[in-house]
Parts: sequence; C-alpha cells; structure tokens
Amino acid sequence: MPSISKRGVDMPPSPIRKLVPIADEAKARGVKVYHLNIGQPDIHTPEVAIDAVKNIDRNILEYSHSAGLLEYRKKLTQYYKKFGIDINTDDIMVTTGGSEAFMFAFFCCFNPGDEIIIPEPFYANYSGFATATGINIKPITSKFEDGFSLPPIEEFEKLITSKTKGIFICNPNNPTGYLYSQEELNQLREIVLKNDLYLLSDEVYREFCYDDYDHISALNLEGLEDNVVLIDSVSKRYSECGIRIGALVSRNKQVIASAMKFAQARLSPPLLGQIAACASLEAADDYSEMVYNEYLGRRNVLVEGLNKIPGVRSLVPKGAFYTMTKLPVEDSDHFCQWILGEFQYENQTVMMAPGSGFYSSRYLGKDEVRIAYVLNEDDLKKALIVIEKALEAYPGKKTL
Amino acid sequence: MPSISKRGVDMPPSPIRKLVPIADEAKARGVKVYHLNIGQPDIHTPEVAIDAVKNIDRNILEYSHSAGLLEYRKKLTQYYKKFGIDINTDDIMVTTGGSEAFMFAFFCCFNPGDEIIIPEPFYANYSGFATATGINIKPITSKFEDGFSLPPIEEFEKLITSKTKGIFICNPNNPTGYLYSQEELNQLREIVLKNDLYLLSDEVYREFCYDDYDHISALNLEGLEDNVVLIDSVSKRYSECGIRIGALVSRNKQVIASAMKFAQARLSPPLLGQIAACASLEAADDYSEMVYNEYLGRRNVLVEGLNKIPGVRSLVPKGAFYTMTKLPVEDSDHFCQWILGEFQYENQTVMMAPGSGFYSSRYLGKDEVRIAYVLNEDDLKKALIVIEKALEAYPGKKTL
Ligand SMILES: Cc1ncc(COP(=O)(O)O)c(C=O)c1O
Ligand SMILES: Cc1ncc(COP(=O)(O)O)c(C=O)c1O
Repeated sequence: MPSISKRGVDMPPSPIRKLVPIADEAKARGVKVYHLNIGQPDIHTPEVAIDAVKNIDRNILEYSHSAGLLEYRKKLTQYYKKFGIDINTDDIMVTTGGSEAFMFAFFCCFNPGDEIIIPEPFYANYSGFATATGINIKPITSKFEDGFSLPPIEEFEKLITSKTKGIFICNPNNPTGYLYSQEELNQLREIVLKNDLYLLSDEVYREFCYDDYDHISALNLEGLEDNVVLIDSVSKRYSECGIRIGALVSRNKQVIASAMKFAQARLSPPLLGQIAACASLEAADDYSEMVYNEYLGRRNVLVEGLNKIPGVRSLVPKGAFYTMTKLPVEDSDHFCQWILGEFQYENQTVMMAPGSGFYSSRYLGKDEVRIAYVLNEDDLKKALIVIEKALEAYPGKKTL
Repeated sequence: MPSISKRGVDMPPSPIRKLVPIADEAKARGVKVYHLNIGQPDIHTPEVAIDAVKNIDRNILEYSHSAGLLEYRKKLTQYYKKFGIDINTDDIMVTTGGSEAFMFAFFCCFNPGDEIIIPEPFYANYSGFATATGINIKPITSKFEDGFSLPPIEEFEKLITSKTKGIFICNPNNPTGYLYSQEELNQLREIVLKNDLYLLSDEVYREFCYDDYDHISALNLEGLEDNVVLIDSVSKRYSECGIRIGALVSRNKQVIASAMKFAQARLSPPLLGQIAACASLEAADDYSEMVYNEYLGRRNVLVEGLNKIPGVRSLVPKGAFYTMTKLPVEDSDHFCQWILGEFQYENQTVMMAPGSGFYSSRYLGKDEVRIAYVLNEDDLKKALIVIEKALEAYPGKKTL
C-alpha cells in the first residue's frame, strides 16, 4: 500500500475533532447542544442575496473569469472605498472563500521552508495552510493579561532570521476579538519595511468593530503598497459562509500576476456564490447595521455573563464575534469533552473550542476556551447558566 | 519589495494567455471569433439543476460538511453504481471542482520532490497543480501515429526511480480523446502493484465515450483498492462548470482521512453548487442521452471536416470532446496567433489551443492544435471553413 505524504500526516486535524462525536452522542441522547464552538452565525443571509440566486436568468452555469466576475470586482472597489480603502479591480482576485486566498498568498509569497511570524492565539486553520504549503509558523504569544494586544515589537525582532518572509495578522482577531491600533500597526509597518517582509492581513471581520473603535486596514499603511496582501471574505459579513466567496487584495502587481496563475489552474471561483455576494453588497448598509447591533448585544450579554461566573474571566472584545475566555480549569480540552459527554443541565449542554487549538506553542491555552457569540441572546443566557453549573460540578477545577 | 516565491515564478501560465488579448482585439474590430479553444460547453445546464437553485428554501447559506452534503454523497454512490462502480459515501470527498480534487490528491499522496508519470499530451493544468505542490512530472509521450494509445509499458518501467510515487491518467483523455482499453489498464495495474504506486485517474469525461466503446474505471481494477484515487467533476457532464463541484473518490481510508484534513482547513465545498449538482443527478438519464448525441454529432462533423482540409489530420476521438489535430504548419503557436490577429474570412476567425501547451517535453506539439467541439454543428462547419481558408493563406505552412 503506497504511503501518505509527510504533509498529509503532518496536516493538523480540526481542533474540535474529538468533540464532534461526543456532541453527536449528546444529541442522540436528546440533549440540546449550544454551539459556541463555531464561526457559523445563525443570522439570516441578506434577502437580496438569496433573491439574486432565486432569480438567476441563465441557461448555462459557466466558468467565470478566473479572477472573478468583473461586475463583482467593480462593486467591491466601491465597497472598499466606503471603508476608505482605495483600490482597483485589477488589485482584486476573487477566491473560493477567504480560505483559498490564504493558499494563494502562501503559494505566491513564500517558498517551502520560509518562516512567517504570527501572533498567537490565531485562527487554527492558518496552521493547516502553512503545513500544506511547507511554511513554518513562528508564533509570538499575545497574552490575556495584556488584553491580547500586539506583543512587544522586540519580540518580533528577535524571531527574524534570513528565512523570515512575512508577518501575518488577523484584525479584528479571531479568536481574541482584539483590534490593532494605529500605533501597533505603525510598529508593524516599520519592521516590515526594515526587513522587506510581506504583511498578510486577514480582515474578514472588518465590519465587526465595537465601541467606536475604528478598523484600520493594512492596505492603508503608507509605503507598504508592495508588502501588504489582504485576505477577505463575505462569509461572516453577510452570514453566507456556504457560498465560498473571498478575495485576495494587493497593490503588488507581481503578487496578483502570480496569484492569477494559481487562479487559472483552478479555472474559476464559484459562479452562484459570486452572484449572491454581488447582491449582498447592495444590502450592505441596512443589513450591516442590523447585524452589527445584534452582535454588539450578544457580546455584551455574553461577556457580562461570563465575568459573573466565579473564576471565569473574559476581556471585552473590540471586534469579531469571539472571546478567548479564561476558565478555572486545569485542562480545557478535558473540560470541553466532559461538559459534552458527562454533563447536562436541564437537558442542555455547550460546545466550545478548547484554547490549545489556537496556539502553535505547546502547553498554552490550557485554561482558555474560545466562545463564539453566534447564537441569539436568549440562547447565550441559557448557555451561560449551563457553563456556570458545569464549572460547579466539574471535578478538574483549578486548585487556587 | 519582497520577492515572489519560486513556485509563484515557476507556475506555468495559461497556454492561451498570448491569444486572449489578440482575440479580444479581433472582437473589438467586430470579427466573430469561434471559440474552439476551451472546455466550456454551450450546452444548457439541466433545467432541474437551475430550478433547484431557484427554489432554494433557506434563510442562511451556511457551510456544508467539509466532505460535502451527505445527501449529495448518497446520491453519488447511486450514480457510480449505474456505472458499475461500487463505493460508499465515506469513500467520497466532495471538492470545489475537479481542480481541488487534484490538489488534495497531490497534497496527500506525494511529497515535494516526488515524481509522477503522466502520458503526454495532457490537460495543461496538471502542470500547475504539480508546480504548486512541488511534484515533478515525468512525461511519456503518446503519439498521434499510435492513435495516442498508452505508450509501451517498458517506457514507464524505464522512468521509474525511487522517487516515483504515482502514475496519472486521464480517461477518456483531454486533449486526445483517447479511451484506454481493458488491456492497457491491466498493464497499468501490473506496474502500479509491482512498484507500490498511486494510480490517479481523471475520469471527468466518463460519460462521453462514443461508438460503443465502454469506459472502464480505474476503481474497478482488481487489487488496486489502496492505490486508486479517482478525480471527478460535474463541470462537463452537466455543463455546469461554474458551480465548482467535483469529487475525490478512493477506497484507501488513509487517503480519505488525510484529504479530510485538507478539506476541513478550507471548511466547506460550495453549498449552492452542491444543491445544483445534487439535482442534476436526477436529470441524469434523459439529459445525458441528449448531450451524448449532441457531442457525437459534433464530433463527426468536426473530424470529417478536418480530414477534408488538405494537410490536416484528426483521429476519431473515442471519448471526451476534444481532438488533437495535426496541421500543416511549422509552429502552431504562431498559427493560432496569426489566425486571430491577422486573418479573417467573411469577418470570422477561430481560436484554438496550440498543441505545445499540452506537452511537458519541449518542442513537441508544434504542428498540433487542440480543438474542442463545444460549439453546435453549424458553428463548427463555419469554423472549419475559416480554418481551411486560413491554411491556404498562411505564410508559415510546412514545407513538405
Ligand atoms: C479569521 C478568519 N479568517 C478566515 C476565515 C475563512 O473563512 P472563509 O473561507 O469561509 O472565507 C475564517 C473563518 O472562520 C476566520 O475566522
Ligand atoms: C481533463 C480535465 N480534468 C479536470 C478538469 C477540471 O475541471 P473542474 O475543476 O471544472 O471540475 C478539466 C476541465 O477542463 C479537464 O478537462
């Protein structure tokens, strides 16, 4: 029997793989499971998007341009303009979700063996994309105690070797909800320029910035025209994760030309998804406000509720819809399995993502869980009670 | 300015990149261009597929299971059963087009530096997937004179080194239209078993086999359960290239488990596409017969017409919808540019894919073009006249 490739073996499995069968069993027992583990919002997709799909007037569902429908890219330039980002249709490559944009960026910007620096905790799938493309992630830990702000720039300096080719940030951040300040971004700007690095910026949660904090796009950092590669996606913004539409945006013509070759090899991004994404841009203003207010309310309910539970601490996320929460447990992997498999309160339980899956350094995140506020306030309140009751009953509590 | 990766540079550009702007200019001059260069059929997508999309009854377009909707995979097992292929839902991974299935297969089965043997001419994008994943293609030339049949198995033996990890076939073949016989497949079976190789089989044109030739799937080769990885796609079969739905199918559990990790990293294949593909399977019988007859008619018109043009020779393709045609020219790259840029007949011209783009060995295919019979018979007849007139006028004719 021929053997699996090394990268096939090394490829990290989903951080919640052990939880899925346990959750399925709980459901089979009739237990209601609150899914706080995922980034799949329960918010409706904009009606105009669904209507656009329902009203398609085509006989052939053909390939689109490899870089995406021109009409959609044109509308995207207007979308970005609203956020003060000035780019052309030629700077945009429409991708199959933000996920494919990562792959294109990694393929084009880095060689196997190259190193990229990423503040951890980070979105777990970055590890997968790095493994697939042979890139080594050098993590720098951002700490709960520091509000998950950008680690001191000296820490970055220390990690830079001749193999370092890029810095990767997620802003606003999944899983921490942190939002980088102009000052922090300026520090990154310096180090990127000084070392001739790429700055990859995942801004898929751009529109989720609370409390009057402004989102500053890496594309607006002066002098970084050739360094910045933006990863974007409509998945969360319009609650249409399944249409698989994202984008890679860069003013670096070589990056776009190179990404175009990868895009041509896979022929085309999804046509139906582009039709839905295009229509979504029309709904943008009203819809985004509705969604924004909804998440803001959820965040407040969740974070307030979490901090009322003895031993639990959550920061107030400035953006996105996650919070990296400290729990009074020794091993959150175990706690997340236990609460699903062995605990229930009034026939309900909760699924959360163990913190360790978001760290590249070993042994970190053992007392953290990522909680996504993708359920409505009522459900969040019920889930909070379950967590509180579970922590009271849990045998693996931290000894203080 | 940070530099592009080596693979970004090495990534082969589209074989028709030089032709696209010339074709655009021709169109701008008001010249009608017959597109015989592409695999984008003009045949209607099944109505049930479009209706399924029009009738979606969902408020949220959410991620689907990373391996694809279970309902769709169930229907696929029935589809394969009709073709005598017995597999389970667990053996199927739904992908974003056949294109993503190649990437998954290359990622899982091969390490960077590994070699795979592919009979050439072959579908040009295989080179792209190989470059992206660091795999070296060792081509073996199949010859027009031999009807593009499988090259002698000794040629394969000669190429096998310790780095050889797989053989890759396309059956029926794009660009040659060749269909492998049971005998040829048995020869491949022997060498695959003997050397413990993967056999990757691209069978996206399965349903296009003419003149009572039967398609034999690699999945039905005895004793190759752990060796065979099938690449499939609905793109051509249901003329729905834009929905981006394909599949990787294998009975090798390790391959599927490994592919699953890559699939989870990118979250989900397109939801809307899966809905369309699922519905298409219902239309299958009537629709497939209609499509089949249409292509058969086109093939006959095209091949007969080509062979009537002095100096032009086309084999009769047994499958798919392409023919690799010999032209009486020294340099078909030049001819394809010239016919678009400098020739017109009654205000019409023709776009074809130069043969060299389908060979990995240099200098081959210089007197060949790939012609796709994706236009209706009337258009094909007109295009044939254009080709004939062009060859009469072309200054770069082969000196006999
Ligand atoms: C930070 C971040 N980036 C990118 C993505 C990719 O999403 P998609 O491929 O659906 O666009 C996600 C999805 O959860 C995410 O959380
Ligand atoms: C031989 C062959 N395999 C695979 C594909 C991939 O098609 P898709 O990604 O649309 O499924 C094509 C498309 O032209 C093809 O000709």
